[in-house]
Amino acid sequence: MDNIKVASAKTIARLSIYRRLLRNAMRGGQASVYSHELAEMVGVTAAQVRRDMMEIGFSADSRSGYNIREMIGQISRLLDSPEGENVAIIGMGKLGCALFGFFAGHSNRLKIVAAFDNDPGKAECVISGCRCHAMNRMKDVFARKNIQVVMLAVPEDVAQDVAETAVAAGAKGILNFAPVLLRLPDNIIVQNIDMMVELEKVSYVTRENTRN
Amino acid sequence: MDNIKVASAKTIARLSIYRRLLRNAMRGGQASVYSHELAEMVGVTAAQVRRDMMEIGFSADSRSGYNIREMIGQISRLLDSPEGENVAIIGMGKLGCALFGFFAGHSNRLKIVAAFDNDPGKAECVISGCRCHAMNRMKDVFARKNIQVVMLAVPEDVAQDVAETAVAAGAKGILNFAPVLLRLPDNIIVQNIDMMVELEKVSYVTRENTRN
Repeated sequence: MDNIKVASAKTIARLSIYRRLLRNAMRGGQASVYSHELAEMVGVTAAQVRRDMMEIGFSADSRSGYNIREMIGQISRLLDSPEGENVAIIGMGKLGCALFGFFAGHSNRLKIVAAFDNDPGKAECVISGCRCHAMNRMKDVFARKNIQVVMLAVPEDVAQDVAETAVAAGAKGILNFAPVLLRLPDNIIVQNIDMMVELEKVSYVTRENTRN
Repeated sequence: MDNIKVASAKTIARLSIYRRLLRNAMRGGQASVYSHELAEMVGVTAAQVRRDMMEIGFSADSRSGYNIREMIGQISRLLDSPEGENVAIIGMGKLGCALFGFFAGHSNRLKIVAAFDNDPGKAECVISGCRCHAMNRMKDVFARKNIQVVMLAVPEDVAQDVAETAVAAGAKGILNFAPVLLRLPDNIIVQNIDMMVELEKVSYVTRENTRN
């Protein structure tokens, strides 16, 4: 239902989680980690951790395990664009503002550098270093700020139109929060976060689980 | 990395999406739908739609396809708790408030009936029919409002503690937005929505895709 290749996207997701946990461990003063320790933190097998590390060409010292600082560096070389990645949020209603607050609060090479809304005046949540523009300014702002990835947080009934506008303006990747299946050219990467579906799943499985 | 059985959770997710699209179609005046039409809307195969419908015991008239109203009813009988499902949001910062706005705006049998925050006074976003309580009131409120499912939108560093409090208070299912792998008893259903991981995935795959 989305067009990221599953195998590679799953590895990327694990690497992203490894990195976050490794950063926490490093902040806690830890210098190295064994595959089974990291596996236990993430909830996967130690063999999976070793396979993932082999895939990105990183190996452990058999005595002391993986060097955490080097491991973070190696994962970052794969995951992060060298020049950082500029991201825009489209739709600055409640959800867009929450996303802005959430991502602005995380130091990361993914930077929210622009926001768009039909009413650029109402986006009071947008703060220093990031302006809210009218929707029809996308093409200009994407080019000027080198934006290829956008988060789409607009209402369901306009999501397809706005997504097409974003793609025409140069967007190549979309993290879509609107509960709509976007129809876009095959070369556009779309990942959906459908919160209603996720909540219905948890609710259903919890009910079934409690019944048994 | 989460403990919902994959096969059944995937079917549930598709049924939830079918229902949303069918409701849109019905609002647009459509009365029946063929499996290949629904498949095209969702982005799956017609065979998949027919398998899912068989699984929930629903069949099509070979001439006119599936009756949309009956199909929505059948999916709802499976997905929805007959008495509706009361849900709480824990953590009423920016994200919690956005979730509240998002879910309160959708008429659904999943109802947000309570919110919790360390500072119940600051949750100005919580509106009619839903109060914000102090965290230590969970047990009482869960019992009184028959809440088994919660959305966790607290900061990463307190997520594990707050999740344990929620489980001790009677929560059986958690939709977790904190970027933390929760360690909870096996009988607790946890589904993670990790927005940072999803954004890193889109960014990486977009970069690779653009390079090729």
